[in-house]
Amino acid sequence: MDVEVINFEEKFEKIKELHSYKVIAQMNNYYFKLVKAKREFIWHQHPETDEVFVVIDGKLIIELKDKTFTLKKGEMVVIPKGVEHKPSSKEETKILLIEPIGTVNTGNARGDLTDTNLEWI
Amino acid sequence: MDVEVINFEEKFEKIKELHSYKVIAQMNNYYFKLVKAKREFIWHQHPETDEVFVVIDGKLIIELKDKTFTLKKGEMVVIPKGVEHKPSSKEETKILLIEPIGTVNTGNARGDLTDTNLEWI
Repeated sequence: MDVEVINFEEKFEKIKELHSYKVIAQMNNYYFKLVKAKREFIWHQHPETDEVFVVIDGKLIIELKDKTFTLKKGEMVVIPKGVEHKPSSKEETKILLIEPIGTVNTGNARGDLTDTNLEWI
Repeated sequence: MDVEVINFEEKFEKIKELHSYKVIAQMNNYYFKLVKAKREFIWHQHPETDEVFVVIDGKLIIELKDKTFTLKKGEMVVIPKGVEHKPSSKEETKILLIEPIGTVNTGNARGDLTDTNLEWI
């Protein structure tokens, strides 16, 4: 049993690269992942699961087919399974993702931006 | 489909009472719950699930049988299933809990502090 306090900012200090997802915690079969993002991502959806985005710092734009919203620090959203979405960040943004182990960042879309190389920090 | 940005501080402004758990989001079969706490809770464990505590503001002390730690703003912990723990807060503390729907706050212990009256805000 290894119970440890996780400090989001301290974990982010360990992340040097953009767009590299790092696992910081596991709850049952879910991973808590951090990513620093500054890019326009691709349209995709996750056919099998909802997905949670929490903004730790910066601004995260999420486009849906019928609306667009911007999340700032201290805000979260649940993207329901099967819902097409396109996240993007114009400035470097620190994001906490919560989703089942095995969820792929690009969902059904796959492609060059697919990242299945998950490291724990 | 109802996708909405959730702002933690705005949700906390709607919570007037201490120790009243409010649901703010659902991800698959998990609830995201907020609570304002200022009390010494009871020893308990959840035999069926891990549990996540995130401190949005204040200080949360969690005692385990073999150690005690204090979480502050921007910190989280995963309490593994079956692990006895006792949360407490000396000052009013804003906590985000993530756990499966149906998880009872007092786990295996039940008693006067059990709260199964979950309201969405």
